[in-house]
Amino acid sequence: MQTATQAGIVTSVAEGAARDLHIREERMSFWLAVAALAAALTGHSMAVAAQDAVHVIPEFTFESGEKLAGMKVGYATHGKLNQAKSNAILVTHGASGVRTSNAALIGPGKAYDTDKYFVVTVDAIGGGNSSQPKDGLGPKFPKYTIRDMVRAQNDLLTNGLGLAHAVAIGGPSMGAQQALEWGIHYPDFMDGLLLIVPASRSDRHVRAIFDAVEAAIKLDPNYRDGNYTAQPRDGIILGGMIYFPWLYSDEHLSTITDDAAWEKASRAFGTAWANAWDANSLLSRYHAASRFDPSTPFGGDLGKGLAQVKAKTLIMPGMTDRTLPTYLARELYRGIKQATYVEIPSYLGHLAGGPANEASAEYAFVTAQIRKFLAELAAK
Amino acid sequence: MQTATQAGIVTSVAEGAARDLHIREERMSFWLAVAALAAALTGHSMAVAAQDAVHVIPEFTFESGEKLAGMKVGYATHGKLNQAKSNAILVTHGASGVRTSNAALIGPGKAYDTDKYFVVTVDAIGGGNSSQPKDGLGPKFPKYTIRDMVRAQNDLLTNGLGLAHAVAIGGPSMGAQQALEWGIHYPDFMDGLLLIVPASRSDRHVRAIFDAVEAAIKLDPNYRDGNYTAQPRDGIILGGMIYFPWLYSDEHLSTITDDAAWEKASRAFGTAWANAWDANSLLSRYHAASRFDPSTPFGGDLGKGLAQVKAKTLIMPGMTDRTLPTYLARELYRGIKQATYVEIPSYLGHLAGGPANEASAEYAFVTAQIRKFLAELAAK
Repeated sequence: MQTATQAGIVTSVAEGAARDLHIREERMSFWLAVAALAAALTGHSMAVAAQDAVHVIPEFTFESGEKLAGMKVGYATHGKLNQAKSNAILVTHGASGVRTSNAALIGPGKAYDTDKYFVVTVDAIGGGNSSQPKDGLGPKFPKYTIRDMVRAQNDLLTNGLGLAHAVAIGGPSMGAQQALEWGIHYPDFMDGLLLIVPASRSDRHVRAIFDAVEAAIKLDPNYRDGNYTAQPRDGIILGGMIYFPWLYSDEHLSTITDDAAWEKASRAFGTAWANAWDANSLLSRYHAASRFDPSTPFGGDLGKGLAQVKAKTLIMPGMTDRTLPTYLARELYRGIKQATYVEIPSYLGHLAGGPANEASAEYAFVTAQIRKFLAELAAK
Repeated sequence: MQTATQAGIVTSVAEGAARDLHIREERMSFWLAVAALAAALTGHSMAVAAQDAVHVIPEFTFESGEKLAGMKVGYATHGKLNQAKSNAILVTHGASGVRTSNAALIGPGKAYDTDKYFVVTVDAIGGGNSSQPKDGLGPKFPKYTIRDMVRAQNDLLTNGLGLAHAVAIGGPSMGAQQALEWGIHYPDFMDGLLLIVPASRSDRHVRAIFDAVEAAIKLDPNYRDGNYTAQPRDGIILGGMIYFPWLYSDEHLSTITDDAAWEKASRAFGTAWANAWDANSLLSRYHAASRFDPSTPFGGDLGKGLAQVKAKTLIMPGMTDRTLPTYLARELYRGIKQATYVEIPSYLGHLAGGPANEASAEYAFVTAQIRKFLAELAAK
């Protein structure tokens, strides 16, 4: 698998920020995978020409009751909307991501086939071209939830793009959190939900991971309660180091046998974060993701929340995911009426769900499952 | 299980530093379990009167080649050595522990039965009453290995206590690392090895966990490259928060349903570390444990190392341990000639192996297995 992986990474790296890297050793492939991830995080990898734009909501009221004037919702469109306005797909992204994070899966003939579908990618509140703490409010930016992201996206699709329907909505990780809230709160809007490396809720262990990440950033003396003049880079890098072993399986980590490559890899994820993220924006983003609880509007009854979903739903966890373990995906399967459950056979842990490397087995599997699901939706 | 756990904790806490805590709610039991762990770490819980002493090695040469004059080896004895000097057992402790950490398992009629055995408990190099960084050398204290600990312990047993033989040697976690090195390098010294929540080696993911812990402590502005005037408590607490979700299983963490109890629990482990440990001593201890590699003296051939072991060996991993996952224990089973493998049925993760709570199912299981193993050794 390492050899196949390497070939794909060359393409991705060549397109990305790490253009100057040369592959000297097979053993370096892991570190390169992390570099490719970093490129994906910073949004340099583009598989299809996208039309970037920003939708503005004059006044947005958060779930907390706080308000923000001029809420920006960054997005991009790929392919063409048909006359019936019946071919839209909304693709959402993970907590470290932006609208370009799923680029490798979007294009003619790809999972999200732009020959058939009008694909909309969107920046979740808090990052990319959407309103976020680094715009000026810093630590005073309203604490937002996944449901806030989804209401902003609904405003984009309905008021911004004039859509009343989507074929499907979905994406990996925090992207699946968004898709699930779409399915619960706008159950008639879409035919299908794509829940990739998903979770029914953020459980205690996820909270513990990101509480430690948050504490790491806040411990950096540069942080100054969020009113920093220089980014607390050391804290952000440490945050990435804390997350790193949770992201992968032991099986995958043990394939890194070269000590020098390991030293680089274990810091590369944190460095990618530090290069891509403003500290306050990162903190508010992971706060939202690590507090995800779709049961809140239903008095804590998760089953009641999941029962709102009418869409056909693809639930596709990673076989070895320990960030969002499969038992949380099985909670979704238990609660959603028309659900298909299939695990991605991979040792890449949580990262199996967002394969940017087009030569990988994960890429082929995820692509095939999404295409099959969309084809079956169309055949209804 | 929670109710049974609670009852045992009351005893432990009453004996310990947290004497003033009162149990108001069932839901507080988890936090109390962490408080009991803290008490165990600081060595307040004693189930049997011990004779504390310190053995001094005039000049100790570390595996690195560095030397230390007057190496102290803190220890305690429990029960009586028989005339034939044939009833000694050496009980070792985990990375956060000291000689008293296994106290709950030692005493008349207990796992390590002081009516039958002369039980020696020992402080590993780097903590307790043994020589350690906080004695004065701080960050300049020689970097030690598990094999260094074992050579110091061998000096204690042979030159200090005049023993040429032990019935058994063992303990949990880093205690099992020590026992394994005993078995490899002094294969004729003992009849049995007790490898409780053990690992064949520190794999990549363990290293990643403790690299993040180390980076957390070093990020605390109080740390000052180890030349601190005040302990970097915030960094140590963050280190504990990083380790916390690795210590337990998701199944166990999800039993904490009260948010206030959770907030306390997720910081309590780090606070226990900060109360018990000097920063440099903690760093050097976890450096040794996270770099454990018994294959080093055998040119990287783990099988060759394990094949040295002649003792009958009990390999007892925790069913849900993610600090030292069961696959590492199975590597031991594959390589050691006369081995018995049995998993502790528990949701307590890594902490299943050091049960201080005498009312818990884990305590009963571990006690029964140790007693059975020692009885079978005696019957040879």
